[in-house]
Amino acid sequence: MRRGMFTAACLGLALVSTAFGRSEGGARPLTMADVLGATTASDWRTPELADLLYLDLEAGRVVIELAPAFAPAHVANIRKLARQKYWDGLAIVRVQENYVVQWGDPESGNADRARELGAAERQLPAEFTVAASAVAFTRLPDGDVYAPQVGWSNGFPVARESAADGDQAWLAHCYAAVGAGRENAADSSNGSELYVVTGHSPRHLDRNITLVGRVLTGMEVLGGLPRGRGPMGFFEDAAQRIAIRSIRLGSDVPEAERVPLQVMRTDTPAFERLVESRRNRREEWFVHPVGKVELCNVPVPVRQPPPED
Amino acid sequence: MRRGMFTAACLGLALVSTAFGRSEGGARPLTMADVLGATTASDWRTPELADLLYLDLEAGRVVIELAPAFAPAHVANIRKLARQKYWDGLAIVRVQENYVVQWGDPESGNADRARELGAAERQLPAEFTVAASAVAFTRLPDGDVYAPQVGWSNGFPVARESAADGDQAWLAHCYAAVGAGRENAADSSNGSELYVVTGHSPRHLDRNITLVGRVLTGMEVLGGLPRGRGPMGFFEDAAQRIAIRSIRLGSDVPEAERVPLQVMRTDTPAFERLVESRRNRREEWFVHPVGKVELCNVPVPVRQPPPED
Repeated sequence: MRRGMFTAACLGLALVSTAFGRSEGGARPLTMADVLGATTASDWRTPELADLLYLDLEAGRVVIELAPAFAPAHVANIRKLARQKYWDGLAIVRVQENYVVQWGDPESGNADRARELGAAERQLPAEFTVAASAVAFTRLPDGDVYAPQVGWSNGFPVARESAADGDQAWLAHCYAAVGAGRENAADSSNGSELYVVTGHSPRHLDRNITLVGRVLTGMEVLGGLPRGRGPMGFFEDAAQRIAIRSIRLGSDVPEAERVPLQVMRTDTPAFERLVESRRNRREEWFVHPVGKVELCNVPVPVRQPPPED
Repeated sequence: MRRGMFTAACLGLALVSTAFGRSEGGARPLTMADVLGATTASDWRTPELADLLYLDLEAGRVVIELAPAFAPAHVANIRKLARQKYWDGLAIVRVQENYVVQWGDPESGNADRARELGAAERQLPAEFTVAASAVAFTRLPDGDVYAPQVGWSNGFPVARESAADGDQAWLAHCYAAVGAGRENAADSSNGSELYVVTGHSPRHLDRNITLVGRVLTGMEVLGGLPRGRGPMGFFEDAAQRIAIRSIRLGSDVPEAERVPLQVMRTDTPAFERLVESRRNRREEWFVHPVGKVELCNVPVPVRQPPPED
């Protein structure tokens, strides 16, 4: 009987360590394809339509999920701007290799010609961090160069510090992060100028600028845009800028035109198995599984819901 | 007198910690622009012409520096292939968003139609690591998720382990790294199929595949190529592949057509200052200098030599 309890306790540990370390009972460790193939409907969530931003370019469509839990004032302003069709006909003004794609009003610095912000706020508080206790957190156990702790919060890669250090959490500048451009003053952004990280994750920007969400689909559209040849990838010639057809909130896109998307939940055993599949790559090709993975090298999967769901 | 000695000892410490930590005597910490502006000719080296590979596409030119210290057999074979003009008229066969651009012979798997390798070897040993003692090493003090130690060796980002762990060093899969594609067998590469990392650094590939060098200039050419729409970014339609005009060794490029390039030395106090300028960003825009930097977020500068040199 005691032996039975001991066994049960060991099994419990084994199940925990499976998630971020070893394989179960000698079974072959799972690849990411295995993990995704074994997910069920409850391993996925459907983002709120009011949290989705559809960016339409001639080159294709980009869908962003906003993160109101981390940047409530910016997200509220971005929703206002989208409802006013503020960005329609404005432009991508910057495409910098290994860094960002950025869009907004090329005339925003010119009071006479700048597009009206309408009902939107002109200036917002910096939303660089939030109280760690206010947001969900699934921790990655492998450490990080930039922050004391890293992991995921409702699908977004995040970093945080301990309660003793300040008890703050923040969105991390991983590839596909979306942020709000600002001038030198920390509180000089209003969400009308947005950027997407398209290169090696510039984590030194964390806590220096407000992140507002991440791209769910369409990174290949942004990544393939022609690079700007001016300093920092800005287009010096207005004719080279890339026109924005429209930016809409998901809730304002006609139902027939919406892309049905689901994001893998990051607070589940299935996601822990996914992380493990990236920590130790077991596809036949790999000869040296590392046993660790960097935050920004774990993709948080996005799918169109299967017909049976 | 004792006090004088104590002061001298403290100064010594201060100078050491300047390189990777604090500022000297209250002086404003340097930005990268400051550091580069203060370099002298001896802070730069000119790569050997036989270590340079010029890749010419319609979209522009890419210049790669090969790393014979890390992959001697692969580099020797790549030199043979370039001298035979092996790649001329072949193609970029894969452009995968946030991962790699890859080129070679689309018919390499078809014995009847594959291009002849001529004097080049068909198969090479895996060159995943070298003895750490055989290569230079300037250490980055900020740690790393994937390897016990990271830093630079003659301009290349590298990782290594301690003598007790195996005493090996290896090139790191940072953005702009160039590697030799292989099949499942570790020794199935020959350097005829090459790839360049164009996205967030896939460090899990370290020690799984042979890296042969890094791109010095032209990443914006590769980064802006249209993405392949097949699995893993391969072009499914042969017409979508991107033609290679030519690949030449620098020593075979007519002098008038060469790009005069210098690479910042990574074993100098100037480079230590550059790293420090990336660890603590002091440009006015930044409000939160991190005090740390990830290996792949430190650019190793490349320049055209100034007229006065």
